[in-house]
Amino acid sequence: MPTPTQVVDQMYHNDAFSQWLGIERLVDEAGRSVLQMTIRPEMLNGFDIAHGAITYALADSALAFAANSHGRQAVSIETSISHTQSLKAGERIIATAEEEHLTHRVGIYRVLIKNESGATVAIFKGTVYRTSKDWEV
Amino acid sequence: MPTPTQVVDQMYHNDAFSQWLGIERLVDEAGRSVLQMTIRPEMLNGFDIAHGAITYALADSALAFAANSHGRQAVSIETSISHTQSLKAGERIIATAEEEHLTHRVGIYRVLIKNESGATVAIFKGTVYRTSKDWEV
Amino acid sequence: MPTPTQVVDQMYHNDAFSQWLGIERLVDEAGRSVLQMTIRPEMLNGFDIAHGAITYALADSALAFAANSHGRQAVSIETSISHTQSLKAGERIIATAEEEHLTHRVGIYRVLIKNESGATVAIFKGTVYRTSKDWEV
Amino acid sequence: MPTPTQVVDQMYHNDAFSQWLGIERLVDEAGRSVLQMTIRPEMLNGFDIAHGAITYALADSALAFAANSHGRQAVSIETSISHTQSLKAGERIIATAEEEHLTHRVGIYRVLIKNESGATVAIFKGTVYRTSKDWEV
Repeated sequence: MPTPTQVVDQMYHNDAFSQWLGIERLVDEAGRSVLQMTIRPEMLNGFDIAHGAITYALADSALAFAANSHGRQAVSIETSISHTQSLKAGERIIATAEEEHLTHRVGIYRVLIKNESGATVAIFKGTVYRTSKDWEV
Repeated sequence: MPTPTQVVDQMYHNDAFSQWLGIERLVDEAGRSVLQMTIRPEMLNGFDIAHGAITYALADSALAFAANSHGRQAVSIETSISHTQSLKAGERIIATAEEEHLTHRVGIYRVLIKNESGATVAIFKGTVYRTSKDWEV
Repeated sequence: MPTPTQVVDQMYHNDAFSQWLGIERLVDEAGRSVLQMTIRPEMLNGFDIAHGAITYALADSALAFAANSHGRQAVSIETSISHTQSLKAGERIIATAEEEHLTHRVGIYRVLIKNESGATVAIFKGTVYRTSKDWEV
Repeated sequence: MPTPTQVVDQMYHNDAFSQWLGIERLVDEAGRSVLQMTIRPEMLNGFDIAHGAITYALADSALAFAANSHGRQAVSIETSISHTQSLKAGERIIATAEEEHLTHRVGIYRVLIKNESGATVAIFKGTVYRTSKDWEV
């Protein structure tokens, strides 16, 4: 069985969009992922703040890494996000995904995204279906 | 009061991320938006399919355009998405946002994203808070 | 393989809470359920309108019936509801559950609840995990 | 301005369905509510476990009490729940609602429901719109 870092290395290595976002991995653990990125001007919407999809993207990557880290392939089946504070270009954000529930077939994760002051900027919940297919690294 | 197209023109004109995505507007109506885009290689994740944030982004832009089209500024307070089919590079997708409920302060929107075969690839729901501030164009 | 009506008969026959609610089944189909009930005084909250759990209950029963009607046991893994209009004692409501997506292991359902005037009073979405266990009736 | 307990007393006093459920209030604080109840046979579904609406009801009441406790009337606009463990008749459950985000117009709450062993049986999230109307007690 591969380690969490081996699985996430392989996922991240091939993940063009996470790389476009500039995501850096701070923690790879079984059921847990901590990611960091910085908002760039091309990520802003018409209000001159980060598009909602940017924090969604960071949270969704954290979900994918945390849920696959056990070594079994997992796919997202439902996600929700509340954006609680706006972000400007240059701000650095950190997402922490934690496992809230895990059965043989289903996992539920909560991801909080915070800015540099420690304020919560997004609250995300993700549910995954765990397939029968193991990661091979 | 500006028209839906005037509001959305202004939103889109300044929306760097929607432009990066290559979003094209097909319909701007009061409470309704139809958008189109094509998946590019830099939008893929480690499974070589579109990152979940790409369809989220298209749906979230459709939500923003539909909800602001009445001429009053609206901000997203809760969104959820289910990804029901994967997408490869080169696929064109169309998102249709429809208003399901509208009061003085709250709006609820449903966005369906379909691929070129007409299959649903994502089901999105968004709730907005309608501020007291009108759009000036 | 049992018919939808055979499965739902068995589910409903043993469902004490659906019976307390006074739920009547109007349609049992594969992937579809239509249910009706009337709001009673003991279902009201402190605002003298139906408690949010009453419409949730009707929608959740419709989800369970629609999702199990294929003959395989399905369990809810995530549900959400928006209450869009309040209900007083004596009002009759109808819930219609429709299947939006179905794979071997996952089903997504949308349930709309309407009052006697045809106005939508609640919008519900439910995701189920489909087990390997068939219904025996 | 009334205290949290004064507001929740008034809400609970008139809440017929919360009383049918047998809800007991353990904590009334500004932005926080802890409630307890016991599963009864008439609350079970066709699988002989608590109907999903029972834990939803407890969580939704905790949301309403926590959100209104500031003295301003608040109404639910979106709620979601994941049922993570089944409950049998006789089991006692405790719901704790915590405020995750509060602005002038919007509040976001998380409610966890646990059984007597401390295991999480349901994860709930609720978003409310805060009206301009104060509670008078």
